[in-house]
Amino acid sequence: MSKGPRAKTFVFLDLEATGLPSVDPEIAELSLFAVHRSSLEDPECDESGSPLPPRVMDKLTLCMSPKYPFTAKASEITGLSREGLGRCGKAGFDGTVVRTLQAFLSRQEGPVCLVAHNGFNYDFPLLCTELRRLGAHLPQDTICLDTLVALQDLDRAHGHGTRAQGGKSYSLGSLFCCYFQAEPSAAHSAEGDVHTLLMVFLHRAAELLAWADEQALSWAHVEPMYVPPDDPRLED
Amino acid sequence: MSKGPRAKTFVFLDLEATGLPSVDPEIAELSLFAVHRSSLEDPECDESGSPLPPRVMDKLTLCMSPKYPFTAKASEITGLSREGLGRCGKAGFDGTVVRTLQAFLSRQEGPVCLVAHNGFNYDFPLLCTELRRLGAHLPQDTICLDTLVALQDLDRAHGHGTRAQGGKSYSLGSLFCCYFQAEPSAAHSAEGDVHTLLMVFLHRAAELLAWADEQALSWAHVEPMYVPPDDPRLED
Repeated sequence: MSKGPRAKTFVFLDLEATGLPSVDPEIAELSLFAVHRSSLEDPECDESGSPLPPRVMDKLTLCMSPKYPFTAKASEITGLSREGLGRCGKAGFDGTVVRTLQAFLSRQEGPVCLVAHNGFNYDFPLLCTELRRLGAHLPQDTICLDTLVALQDLDRAHGHGTRAQGGKSYSLGSLFCCYFQAEPSAAHSAEGDVHTLLMVFLHRAAELLAWADEQALSWAHVEPMYVPPDDPRLED
Repeated sequence: MSKGPRAKTFVFLDLEATGLPSVDPEIAELSLFAVHRSSLEDPECDESGSPLPPRVMDKLTLCMSPKYPFTAKASEITGLSREGLGRCGKAGFDGTVVRTLQAFLSRQEGPVCLVAHNGFNYDFPLLCTELRRLGAHLPQDTICLDTLVALQDLDRAHGHGTRAQGGKSYSLGSLFCCYFQAEPSAAHSAEGDVHTLLMVFLHRAAELLAWADEQALSWAHVEPMYVPPDDPRLED
């Protein structure tokens, strides 16, 4: 049963943040690659048959200074820190982020499907928190797809077929290694992880597009990760 | 003699377009990497001493459908075509590009210095044409630096020192090869060329920053490449 409209553009998304959900994290880096459906339906391949990133792709990566420090682990993993971001003069997740994001999304043929790995447990609720804090919205017909959920579901449907991960991890890095026999590059930079996510999606694009048409959920279903503090920063 | 303010953020820029200046080209792809001055003054290096791209960097890449076709040569070089861009649902260089660009630039600590290779002969005047067509502006304190002009000037000042290119080309690809003993990747995609430009800049960052402080020109000095047709598209 289709839960939403058929997406025309898939916007691959990754967030780096100050910590895990338990610490009410703040977004410190956001990256989006917008790919038209037609490029996913008919991807170019190299000589070995491996998919190549589409030639036509819009990309946005923004860094922002959080109000509170990173956990030690998050800083170590991402290579980011509040001091480093401050040294680069980065403002917080404020109205200029929202305006950039909204203008970027308005360039994409809609409906847009946001795609994130483990999105329903992390990226989508966290983005929802930051947007809600600022009273900002995404286009009403936005839908979203979690590749972790989708690939587990597809593999279950395949039973013990060649596609199944078996006991192996469904982490983004593990999937990339399994599909491409190579290590992903620039892991835990937002842009690096979006690239890895796009390649994983491309490897199983036909199945994932069909799955998205049936199972992707409306963005309206996403609940914030935590109740944002009452601190609207829209005025800047 | 300083011509403008000391830039706090350097925004590396490349445009792909439908042809050379003689055909009154249109922008079809635009890429910007925004790097804070502090990351250029004190770049990270790998074990061999080669500079690494900064960890904190905002990036924007947008594709747009031109009104007129690419020249055969431009299409061949860039891998872009009006048909391919149309298939991906890309709108033209319109108000949404301006809004995305302005919002992206507003995230950067100013003054901003736009950096492009051969910028004064191509990227800056062409961007000026497209912005003027839409009645759009960049921040008043924006300055700009052409790395082709700057590196030729610096090498002349060095005389026949080791830095001089001698009879060799100052094309971006040649400079990259000379500085890094490697071929640049993704040449003639806007994003690929911006990456190459950033690496070339990083290789000579101290000199180029000092040169920029003295010689960079105000964006207000940039003249349009050609008089834009009277066709405002701001309304969308």
